[in-house]
Amino acid sequence: MKSTIHVITPITTTGFRTEEDFNACERSDLKVTNSLLERGPASIESEFDEALAIPDTIRLAIEAERDGADAIVIDCMGDPGLASCREAVSIPVLGPCQTACHTAAMLGHRFSFITVLERLRPMLDHIVGGYGLAGSYAAFEAVDVPVLDICHDVDKLGGLLAEKAIKTVREDHAGAVVLGCTGFMGLAEVIAGTLSEEGLEVPVIDAIPLTIRVADSLVKTGLTHSKFIYPRPEKKAITGYPMPDLWD
Amino acid sequence: MKSTIHVITPITTTGFRTEEDFNACERSDLKVTNSLLERGPASIESEFDEALAIPDTIRLAIEAERDGADAIVIDCMGDPGLASCREAVSIPVLGPCQTACHTAAMLGHRFSFITVLERLRPMLDHIVGGYGLAGSYAAFEAVDVPVLDICHDVDKLGGLLAEKAIKTVREDHAGAVVLGCTGFMGLAEVIAGTLSEEGLEVPVIDAIPLTIRVADSLVKTGLTHSKFIYPRPEKKAITGYPMPDLWD
Amino acid sequence: MKSTIHVITPITTTGFRTEEDFNACERSDLKVTNSLLERGPASIESEFDEALAIPDTIRLAIEAERDGADAIVIDCMGDPGLASCREAVSIPVLGPCQTACHTAAMLGHRFSFITVLERLRPMLDHIVGGYGLAGSYAAFEAVDVPVLDICHDVDKLGGLLAEKAIKTVREDHAGAVVLGCTGFMGLAEVIAGTLSEEGLEVPVIDAIPLTIRVADSLVKTGLTHSKFIYPRPEKKAITGYPMPDLWD
Amino acid sequence: MKSTIHVITPITTTGFRTEEDFNACERSDLKVTNSLLERGPASIESEFDEALAIPDTIRLAIEAERDGADAIVIDCMGDPGLASCREAVSIPVLGPCQTACHTAAMLGHRFSFITVLERLRPMLDHIVGGYGLAGSYAAFEAVDVPVLDICHDVDKLGGLLAEKAIKTVREDHAGAVVLGCTGFMGLAEVIAGTLSEEGLEVPVIDAIPLTIRVADSLVKTGLTHSKFIYPRPEKKAITGYPMPDLWD
Amino acid sequence: MKSTIHVITPITTTGFRTEEDFNACERSDLKVTNSLLERGPASIESEFDEALAIPDTIRLAIEAERDGADAIVIDCMGDPGLASCREAVSIPVLGPCQTACHTAAMLGHRFSFITVLERLRPMLDHIVGGYGLAGSYAAFEAVDVPVLDICHDVDKLGGLLAEKAIKTVREDHAGAVVLGCTGFMGLAEVIAGTLSEEGLEVPVIDAIPLTIRVADSLVKTGLTHSKFIYPRPEKKAITGYPMPDLWD
Amino acid sequence: MKSTIHVITPITTTGFRTEEDFNACERSDLKVTNSLLERGPASIESEFDEALAIPDTIRLAIEAERDGADAIVIDCMGDPGLASCREAVSIPVLGPCQTACHTAAMLGHRFSFITVLERLRPMLDHIVGGYGLAGSYAAFEAVDVPVLDICHDVDKLGGLLAEKAIKTVREDHAGAVVLGCTGFMGLAEVIAGTLSEEGLEVPVIDAIPLTIRVADSLVKTGLTHSKFIYPRPEKKAITGYPMPDLWD
Repeated sequence: MKSTIHVITPITTTGFRTEEDFNACERSDLKVTNSLLERGPASIESEFDEALAIPDTIRLAIEAERDGADAIVIDCMGDPGLASCREAVSIPVLGPCQTACHTAAMLGHRFSFITVLERLRPMLDHIVGGYGLAGSYAAFEAVDVPVLDICHDVDKLGGLLAEKAIKTVREDHAGAVVLGCTGFMGLAEVIAGTLSEEGLEVPVIDAIPLTIRVADSLVKTGLTHSKFIYPRPEKKAITGYPMPDLWD
Repeated sequence: MKSTIHVITPITTTGFRTEEDFNACERSDLKVTNSLLERGPASIESEFDEALAIPDTIRLAIEAERDGADAIVIDCMGDPGLASCREAVSIPVLGPCQTACHTAAMLGHRFSFITVLERLRPMLDHIVGGYGLAGSYAAFEAVDVPVLDICHDVDKLGGLLAEKAIKTVREDHAGAVVLGCTGFMGLAEVIAGTLSEEGLEVPVIDAIPLTIRVADSLVKTGLTHSKFIYPRPEKKAITGYPMPDLWD
Repeated sequence: MKSTIHVITPITTTGFRTEEDFNACERSDLKVTNSLLERGPASIESEFDEALAIPDTIRLAIEAERDGADAIVIDCMGDPGLASCREAVSIPVLGPCQTACHTAAMLGHRFSFITVLERLRPMLDHIVGGYGLAGSYAAFEAVDVPVLDICHDVDKLGGLLAEKAIKTVREDHAGAVVLGCTGFMGLAEVIAGTLSEEGLEVPVIDAIPLTIRVADSLVKTGLTHSKFIYPRPEKKAITGYPMPDLWD
Repeated sequence: MKSTIHVITPITTTGFRTEEDFNACERSDLKVTNSLLERGPASIESEFDEALAIPDTIRLAIEAERDGADAIVIDCMGDPGLASCREAVSIPVLGPCQTACHTAAMLGHRFSFITVLERLRPMLDHIVGGYGLAGSYAAFEAVDVPVLDICHDVDKLGGLLAEKAIKTVREDHAGAVVLGCTGFMGLAEVIAGTLSEEGLEVPVIDAIPLTIRVADSLVKTGLTHSKFIYPRPEKKAITGYPMPDLWD
Repeated sequence: MKSTIHVITPITTTGFRTEEDFNACERSDLKVTNSLLERGPASIESEFDEALAIPDTIRLAIEAERDGADAIVIDCMGDPGLASCREAVSIPVLGPCQTACHTAAMLGHRFSFITVLERLRPMLDHIVGGYGLAGSYAAFEAVDVPVLDICHDVDKLGGLLAEKAIKTVREDHAGAVVLGCTGFMGLAEVIAGTLSEEGLEVPVIDAIPLTIRVADSLVKTGLTHSKFIYPRPEKKAITGYPMPDLWD
Repeated sequence: MKSTIHVITPITTTGFRTEEDFNACERSDLKVTNSLLERGPASIESEFDEALAIPDTIRLAIEAERDGADAIVIDCMGDPGLASCREAVSIPVLGPCQTACHTAAMLGHRFSFITVLERLRPMLDHIVGGYGLAGSYAAFEAVDVPVLDICHDVDKLGGLLAEKAIKTVREDHAGAVVLGCTGFMGLAEVIAGTLSEEGLEVPVIDAIPLTIRVADSLVKTGLTHSKFIYPRPEKKAITGYPMPDLWD
């Protein structure tokens, strides 16, 4: 059985993500596809940005299911639209934050979240608590330098993140680290390597590759999210948002 | 000091709410105004509906602040857009669910939520937990009959809700009851009366009048939500949603 | 409808509080009155002091209800006698600690408590936990200099409290600050101003003015505490404490 | 080393308790003494009664320490004055509720509380939560018949309590039962026997004998409560309550 | 990259499990192997049985790593030896209970555990709490008929489990169901089907196939458990248990 | 009634513990006996060591009950085999960690755990959480110098532990300290003395003497652990472990 996992990148900026990024996740029986928002924010850095990203994310989820995808992964660490997409479709919808945090709790008892923006701290608190993992959440650490200054310099970013990782393992006794931005894809190995040189053998989780593989595990096992918890929306008039296939 | 509290009714259906509904809350130094969505769902009964209601709710919040309102109340018990509106404006934004649940916890130790739709149970769980009140939440009870069958018959609805209220006070030992739909406005008194006849003196909370008055209390005391927790969104390209005044 | 909110200052020291202190809270339809203990401690700084303040606080609450007050506010951040007064009377009884902590949780996600005496830390822990808000409680900070040294110098006290406020927002990520002594009334504005100069826009809660206004909101909405949770005491012989009107 | 454990019965009713009641707890190196309130309620059935019992309980605790007692046990399942007595004296002060609940959690994982008055439910919730044992608390069950009807008929009371014990073990999966009134002293054996006949081998805790023995264990091990957590009250004017030895 | 997942069945009874049971999990790049205890209990139904199963489980884990396995799955829903095996080896060790419970929390918000033996209830409570998932745990249900009476009749067992599943979804509002014995392998589909006929679309988790696939996901992503949390045991004299390769 | 408390020291190293160590706990009606493992690790410093210590601990517990002991105490702060021993016998089985932590919570509100090995931190987290005391657990502190370097120098060990005790009381506001290794027996007094010199009057708990006395209190009160929660293991084939008296 060949599965197709569809990744929705919930921003409007082209070039940030391409299907090639997911090649390493593909297997003889696993294919990965990708789509981008037509309506929404250029990037996601606030509750405000999330709110504007969700409606079009839902539309792409409905279309992916209609087009034959076997599961959907939302490509943002805030898991925007996870609950509403699960209502709208029946195939599994996974968020990288939820998947990474549960996996980190399994592997490392308590995990820390490492990202660029300090301002996301209360949002993460809320998300992690909503997933029932507050007791497994060690700390939030932000690099706290302007994003644009380091984006061109991936090595510098990796170094700054590794410093924060060492700090939170030593001071907060975190047993695992979750990279807090899907844009950090590919950096886990170098950060884990730096931790290991310090004698700190903790898993560093690059959420997107993991989430794609876990989504495939669910498909192969015949599991999806609970429609009892995420029931199909009632049919009603919707003004200003086309949702063609939902109630047809 | 005369305050203006602006109530955003986050649906597109006209006639459900008018400014007259808020007359009883007005005082010599308190005025209430109201607005309705142009883009969004006809009513809110799911995470999906909420997602489609939030973008235009944010727009109305920005406009209300620009137009001189002193505080904003979102007129839906799911508190849609509470966090994103708080990011977008500096005047206090209150949700009736958050305000009612905290007040119920204060007055009755543990509270139950009584509403029409069984399907909202996990959503409420998530909302109440996010407000840090999971330990004060006694139970969720739904009348569980089709909304359209009872809407025309307010007496029948009041009776059904009162039955559920009696049940949750007796069986779940709830010390307060929160009415779970802002559409129940005006029913609290009759439900409290029925409880009282059974010897159960528990507060029954009609969230909108309470929230308008608490919003006014905050304005008069000079308090608003924390901009440290809900910082202004970063300026960026937004496709498909006009947000004229946010970064001007 | 004109409401009367009665404030009980649960100490025996005259001159600490006068009815003029509450003038700013009064409105055309809201009047504030005040009374003082005849029996009890000169001030409240321990569980021991609280225990000796409660019996006479109950007596004053019973008398205030008999004399026509619409709600009662206990003027001490330990909320002494809140539960027993709620048993003894039917009009709303509010404690400034409970009201301020719930409001701080609503506005700032997680709050810190700032006061003078380090020794109150475990008491606060117990109080906040009893209100179901342990998960919203960021930290306790005490100025930790002798009270008498700073009482005459309100500016110095404000400065010391502001320092602690800055510290707890930065280090504990508190989104709101509760001033931990009703004797700090009037200092919130200057502390909030200092925080704002540091770029930290967090609400600083002066509990007494807020609690008076929230009490008025409850009266106007027709709400009181749950008599199901705080039932009237059984009639019985009481030796040594006159409670004239309770069972008449 | 011979220890003296002093039991304070915090009511004014004579004849309810005599020193003979404690004979079975005495050993060659353990003596038990007892005292009664001069000022306070005839019995304790509410927060109100507790409030009026505490001041004279504190006085008796100070006198017991002055008279050479090695530890103090407060003879009421509401543990009235536990924190304030611990502030006032340095010898161990134990409450039977705290001791029984911790022991029940140790022996039976989760415990239920069985008593006569339904109205004590929220008070117990608050007490157990304050002791940090909310997660170990299975249920509260009340016999809910008038106290005076059963007090003369101890067999009937034992039977009714045993029924509730069977119910809470079967339905709430409680692994231990705490008898919720120190007036039930002596009934544990018969209730445990009835449970055992039903195949339910759970410990039934008669708190006063257990607490006296645990107090003695602490004395023999050289332990007392933390004065860091329960520091001595500051010296100050106290009106209406004689506390002769506290600051001498 | 071809991975080998080694399944340790931690009992001594032959014939219960064969490598053919795992054929459906194999893929072109995933192989499953299996081993059985030489020393231990015939089956696992208590903490006592678990204690006797763990030492030889550790030995098999060490041997599997030495023999080139890429990950280890412990084939018992009590996850016996999970922490000690993780200390002893560096390849990922997964327990089906931990993996199933985290997945159930992800897909269904709150999950119930359905098994045969009522006596396992406190053990499960302890396990689920230890995984940090107490807040996501809805209920425990046991079929409560003698195992030997139903083992020969798989259809009857499936029916009884489905009844319990329907009950816990309706009454406890569980959004997912975890089958509480690895001996139930293969029954998930029929139970999910019965639930679906009742209009209850909830995932039913057959833990072993899921855990094998999640183990493979971790291997492919380059993740293992935290050696910071599960450090290698210190070398020391061990009497009575051969552990040949651990410190060589 | 003379009680015999049997202490099982769950390691194979002779000379670490002798019956003389328990002389101070004996009374005219209390005798203490001791036994050592035949099969197991030389010392316990990991989950791995614990796993290998438990089977023979169970055997010794069964033999102690058969030989007439009235209660059993397991002489290791990891409480190895507590649940499985409670299943295997009917006389009370106590673990020093469980007893000390509950007592510390009672006396000091929140407690810290002070020991030698940093690597035990996650294990303690798990144990304390399993006892339902996570909310009362202030901090874990480890001396973090090689055990062998300090074992010969008890004064140095006491000094290092006292430093950590001062740190955790001041920084974590711990109100009690639990010594985290039964090998520290006798050091509590000097550590408490050092704390007291710093003005920090907190109880320091030497778990073994306390646990022996509490076990005696339970015996005298007629209490044991719940066999409803820890039921007797089912009879079955056990390979490799002689358990002679369990099902005879």
